[in-house]
Amino acid sequence: MQTPMQSALQTPNPAPTTAPAPDFSAWSAARLAEVERALDAALAPQAPAALGLAMRYAVLDGGKRLRPLLVWAAAEAAAGAPAAALASATHTAVLRAACAVELIHAYSLVHDDLPCMDNDVLRRGKPTVHVQYGEATALLAGDALQVLAFELLLEQPDAALGAALALQLARAAGHLGMAGGQAIDLASVGRRLSLAELEDMHRRKTGALLLASVQMGALAGGADAAALAALTRYGQALGLAFQVIDDVLDVVADSGTLGKTAGKDAAADKPTFVSLMGLNGARQYAHDLLAQAHAALHERPVAAAQTLHDLADWVLHRSH
Amino acid sequence: MQTPMQSALQTPNPAPTTAPAPDFSAWSAARLAEVERALDAALAPQAPAALGLAMRYAVLDGGKRLRPLLVWAAAEAAAGAPAAALASATHTAVLRAACAVELIHAYSLVHDDLPCMDNDVLRRGKPTVHVQYGEATALLAGDALQVLAFELLLEQPDAALGAALALQLARAAGHLGMAGGQAIDLASVGRRLSLAELEDMHRRKTGALLLASVQMGALAGGADAAALAALTRYGQALGLAFQVIDDVLDVVADSGTLGKTAGKDAAADKPTFVSLMGLNGARQYAHDLLAQAHAALHERPVAAAQTLHDLADWVLHRSH
Repeated sequence: MQTPMQSALQTPNPAPTTAPAPDFSAWSAARLAEVERALDAALAPQAPAALGLAMRYAVLDGGKRLRPLLVWAAAEAAAGAPAAALASATHTAVLRAACAVELIHAYSLVHDDLPCMDNDVLRRGKPTVHVQYGEATALLAGDALQVLAFELLLEQPDAALGAALALQLARAAGHLGMAGGQAIDLASVGRRLSLAELEDMHRRKTGALLLASVQMGALAGGADAAALAALTRYGQALGLAFQVIDDVLDVVADSGTLGKTAGKDAAADKPTFVSLMGLNGARQYAHDLLAQAHAALHERPVAAAQTLHDLADWVLHRSH
Repeated sequence: MQTPMQSALQTPNPAPTTAPAPDFSAWSAARLAEVERALDAALAPQAPAALGLAMRYAVLDGGKRLRPLLVWAAAEAAAGAPAAALASATHTAVLRAACAVELIHAYSLVHDDLPCMDNDVLRRGKPTVHVQYGEATALLAGDALQVLAFELLLEQPDAALGAALALQLARAAGHLGMAGGQAIDLASVGRRLSLAELEDMHRRKTGALLLASVQMGALAGGADAAALAALTRYGQALGLAFQVIDDVLDVVADSGTLGKTAGKDAAADKPTFVSLMGLNGARQYAHDLLAQAHAALHERPVAAAQTLHDLADWVLHRSH
């Protein structure tokens, strides 16, 4: 029997793993340290019974934190200034937006992993929340994480900005966004979707929250209409690229590397970009989408967009 | 075999059923007709797959709509004017608050009824959402109903008022409110709670949203600090009275009258006001709480509070 590490080494890599530029690493480490502190402080120390523990378990010490990084990178690009140079109210708004998108993401994973959905037992290399705390507590923890995201956004000095951010997040998470995409996913098992149908599903299921991360960062950073339009094109291409790579990794990576169960799409007979386009076709499509994301950044309105550029590279070349 | 109607007639009534005053009936019919139209319009006509149908099934054509009525009655009391005389933006805010609290209530019922929670098959006289649409769709429908409540509040002409209402609702629904109360409930099965512990659980589990209904109505209606304080005392007493009566009905009513499974607290070995105080003690306590709710209204700051007075009577004397 192979250990996860051994089989990871034996699995062909989907794309060359490029080491990010040193300044990107330093930037993301600094931003994530701040997000982790804020999440730790926000996460329900007074929640009764096992609820607070389950909420913390679902969010802390795990995950790539791609969405908070997108919020921060978009905010800095829109503001044309690094985090340290932002006005206090702006900094607060960006940080709360970064935490809020991660809380929504975490809640969706907790509910997705439940036995009535994907019935998954492994997430971020740990037992899933319902395995650790029971299904009922996992259900409640997901519910409470969703509403905590809105509470965080609505409780800030710039109330009008908080409300605008909360409305963007609600639309992305709701029945026309993430929840709607999950409903399409449920209805698609065993069906042959067209590429357009598959893309529509993923635009909602994962793309809407990734796009909202970029748009919320842009809004909090004070983007004008032209910058917002360019960043929206970036977020749309990136969101789709993310899912195409996810489908590739589901085929070529192993559970130890992914930190979640590999090969489950094929096992569940779910349509994927790989099943529709083949492995090489899906890889090529991801590269094309990456190029689209980069191109959106090189238009006039977005300055200071190197970090967004690097983030898109990171999404494409990630191994988990 | 008895039909539900026959056994309802044979069941001793928990309290005399008083017919509400004619003006209260006309008032509630008019307010509810408006709320039903607004919910019907808000409920996800474009949601993909079965999600929209499940969301509509969970909310429309059922329920006492106590929470929307509390929003309306508190708003009219705070404004000192009936709905028809409110300014347009105020009217919109009150109506959206009324819909939002009902969406949160409906989502909580959908998730509560799931097999991993109460595993209930009957609600409002119909099969529960997961029986009708499957567990996965019920889970998603609950998630989408929760976020729709915030979308409704945040999408209105008076954005600042919408944000303030959404923050009140988030706190009431979250880990320190409704979700926290449910976590205590999960942890309390088979334990002997003190009366203080039982009240703390219900203050969160059902009381927080009932109180928020009153407070959101008060805020939307423009209550000053003194009126808000009096209405808060009213909402606290009413919220607790509601749960005491619920426990009484669980013992003395039958499923046909309740529209949900009767006797399930005792079957689940859950602590209740009846198990702690006895049937007569619980009834007396409900009457005392009703008197407290009425007394709060008779203090100086709240004029035009007859409808709130009548609503409290209705809560106490309801048979389901």
